[in-house]
Amino acid sequence: MMRKQAACIGGGVIGGGWIARFILNGWDVNVFDPQADARDKIEQVLENARRSLPALADVAMPEEGVIRYCDTLKQAVENALWIQESVPERLAVKHAVFKELQKYCKSDAIIGSSTSGFTPSQLQQNSANPSQIFVAHPFNPVYLLPLVEVVASADNCADLQQQALRILTELGMSPLLVRGEIAAHIADRLLEALWREALWLINDDLATTSEIDDAIRFGFGLRWAQMGLFETYRIAGGEAGMAHFMAQFGPALQWPWSKLTNVPALTDELIEKIASQSDQQSGAYSIRELERIRDDNLVGFMRVQKAHNWGVGKLLKAHDQQLQAVPAKPAAIILHAQPLIMYQGRVLPAWIDYNGHMNEAHYLTVLSAATDKFMLTVGVDEDYISGGGSYFTLETHIRHLAEAKLNQPLQITTQLISCDAKRMHLFHRLTDSSSGKLLATGEHLLLHMDLTSGKSCLASERVQAKLQSIFEYHALLDKPEGAGNAIGVK
Amino acid sequence: MMRKQAACIGGGVIGGGWIARFILNGWDVNVFDPQADARDKIEQVLENARRSLPALADVAMPEEGVIRYCDTLKQAVENALWIQESVPERLAVKHAVFKELQKYCKSDAIIGSSTSGFTPSQLQQNSANPSQIFVAHPFNPVYLLPLVEVVASADNCADLQQQALRILTELGMSPLLVRGEIAAHIADRLLEALWREALWLINDDLATTSEIDDAIRFGFGLRWAQMGLFETYRIAGGEAGMAHFMAQFGPALQWPWSKLTNVPALTDELIEKIASQSDQQSGAYSIRELERIRDDNLVGFMRVQKAHNWGVGKLLKAHDQQLQAVPAKPAAIILHAQPLIMYQGRVLPAWIDYNGHMNEAHYLTVLSAATDKFMLTVGVDEDYISGGGSYFTLETHIRHLAEAKLNQPLQITTQLISCDAKRMHLFHRLTDSSSGKLLATGEHLLLHMDLTSGKSCLASERVQAKLQSIFEYHALLDKPEGAGNAIGVK
Repeated sequence: MMRKQAACIGGGVIGGGWIARFILNGWDVNVFDPQADARDKIEQVLENARRSLPALADVAMPEEGVIRYCDTLKQAVENALWIQESVPERLAVKHAVFKELQKYCKSDAIIGSSTSGFTPSQLQQNSANPSQIFVAHPFNPVYLLPLVEVVASADNCADLQQQALRILTELGMSPLLVRGEIAAHIADRLLEALWREALWLINDDLATTSEIDDAIRFGFGLRWAQMGLFETYRIAGGEAGMAHFMAQFGPALQWPWSKLTNVPALTDELIEKIASQSDQQSGAYSIRELERIRDDNLVGFMRVQKAHNWGVGKLLKAHDQQLQAVPAKPAAIILHAQPLIMYQGRVLPAWIDYNGHMNEAHYLTVLSAATDKFMLTVGVDEDYISGGGSYFTLETHIRHLAEAKLNQPLQITTQLISCDAKRMHLFHRLTDSSSGKLLATGEHLLLHMDLTSGKSCLASERVQAKLQSIFEYHALLDKPEGAGNAIGVK
Repeated sequence: MMRKQAACIGGGVIGGGWIARFILNGWDVNVFDPQADARDKIEQVLENARRSLPALADVAMPEEGVIRYCDTLKQAVENALWIQESVPERLAVKHAVFKELQKYCKSDAIIGSSTSGFTPSQLQQNSANPSQIFVAHPFNPVYLLPLVEVVASADNCADLQQQALRILTELGMSPLLVRGEIAAHIADRLLEALWREALWLINDDLATTSEIDDAIRFGFGLRWAQMGLFETYRIAGGEAGMAHFMAQFGPALQWPWSKLTNVPALTDELIEKIASQSDQQSGAYSIRELERIRDDNLVGFMRVQKAHNWGVGKLLKAHDQQLQAVPAKPAAIILHAQPLIMYQGRVLPAWIDYNGHMNEAHYLTVLSAATDKFMLTVGVDEDYISGGGSYFTLETHIRHLAEAKLNQPLQITTQLISCDAKRMHLFHRLTDSSSGKLLATGEHLLLHMDLTSGKSCLASERVQAKLQSIFEYHALLDKPEGAGNAIGVK
């Protein structure tokens, strides 16, 4: 499959984040950034992205795209479907970049600007082709946070707008189409309001940077990561609903607590106060360390919501399905006399333990996922289970044969050793899929259950038939080495 | 051990949250709330709290305290060490409650007010004993969110203040001692600033409640749950630091994006607009459902940070240590001829799978935790491991004998079947600790490794001696039923 082509103009923290999101989702990226250290900075962002973004997926990511560093804007943009501009936040600079690149780019390429403050109409001033220039404002780290604000003007092409939303969704992002052109769009207006109040609290010595951060992350920050502002307050209002809450909160609005009508002077003294408080709070960590702590936590928060099928987790699941819909390899379930591929993935950061390798319990996490996939393959899916039948594992025998390290690519193949109307006996082989090295085996005996009575019962005829058809082929295979063994110190 | 006594005056969502936090941390609570449905409402909050708060701990929680519903304020407060006031936010009502309860309470009891807006000086007006009245402002859900703002006036007793901070910490909270008396303390000032900007965006039809919530939870909300505002921006500034970031952000402050200087009129029309948008966004869920989704996500986010030893996770770990320092039962490691208790806990919400019971992989999670505890018991601790030695599991045999359900109390006892200078062979029995029912067995063979060379090597003499001393006793036990078996369909 031909990979799609993007161009990224400007490779700072934001530009680098875009580059990472594109290539890890299988796009090729042309980069134009005349800064001498651009390549080093981009490689650093990529290193962070490679260790975190794939940990959000439960399916194989596409093959990584290729980065090409270009000497001219022309080289960078001429074949690109998407051109992302992340140059400094000065309108004249952005205008100059657009003027030059529009000489060479396709007329139906989408030009997204990472601007946090300017409106599309401002960006489009004096453009030869304003219809292709949009605001596509992302949030740091761009490779992990899904929010991207898309803003269009009356001069934008409606078809290109639809295509822009579709491409951003393909990249695993959650595009928010802003309803109007306003300075700073939506999120940065909210941020600015709170930021200003925080500066007053520090200016007046009512709180330090560290105290304000704790006031956020030990309190409402934990709520906002999952529900935002209004859904959180809806809960506070109780069954009486949002109007009831508004009536309660209303009076305070007329008698504002916060210093809304004033702007603190950003004196050298205030800047120095904030900088030194921040050093005291976070100075023990380098920015690199803070980035990785942040990314590990972000992956964790997003995976929690994935497990609960909530908020950003729904988005991740949809992205998995989309990745799976375009399989990198031909579908595996073709029956012949060889074990079935029932799992592909990588060792996730959260699976590493104090010994520096994948914790023993997570060997069973992946073996169990392979068992689930095998159950799906023989027809034990959501519908079957809600109909009252499922298989429970009775016994598990794991042989840990080699260590698995962070990001190591894993594959599990499954052989059906035996089956009858109630039972199935599986043998999984967990290997490093790049080297083929055997890491572990898992032998599992499962029993078919009636979920209502809690007693064993026969599997449906359809499931039995599917098992039999697999067993016809797998009976031709040798009994796997290690199957049927007991544990003991010899 | 005598349980400590608290009194909670007012049992709404906030009062009920305080009651839950106290009793789940082993305090008895007297409740005074003359509302007819107070008891029902409190029981609902408790039900939510019981299914979520214990899931934050990795050690046994103390025995739950007892709630007593009192007919008079006198009964409620006379023996209490801590009195928490959560009555409606009207100063005259609060003054009346303080006046009445101070007739009966101990002079050195701490009176905490859940007020979100009033200062301690306002609360203390006309009080016979102002020194014991503090602001202790929590955040919903009080049983999960650790933030509590503590505010004192010049009239407060310094010793009582220290004691208040200590007790709140004992309850697993993170008290933030506010440096001055200001309306709405710290967090609600920040919230109000952002809330006001959000109302403008809706008023002007630039965004809906759902779009604003997505702008928060798919973007900066995920950052703030772990690092707050300043540490997040510190990263954005890069190695150049916070002063560099301030210089970049500075100009925007002088040219504000947000509508700071104006207050939107809270007309019926605006209230109706927000209420109907909120219904459309969240109306598919009852408040009860939203609360449980919120709590499950909060537990997940906090446990992610616990795994990463970051932010609120450090607090949870400290709270575990504190709970462990006062063991509910005598220490288990007394050697005689019986298996050692190596794990106690409950089935956590995240461990439940599509079959409605503890997923098979989490049987190994708890068995593996028991193995880790056994390793600690024989001296393989952090120091030993950083010295280059550890045990790796070679083989695992699990027999799943019964289902484990949400919150079921678990215990694992461990028998050392054999050992030599390099190996140990363990047999774990996982039971329901209330009924004694056997849920699973785990048989494990471990090999001592040199972590530097990656090859097996002898355990230290000290570890070998500890293993031998346990084995002398365990050799007197029968070989466990099920040990040494292979898997197979008979």
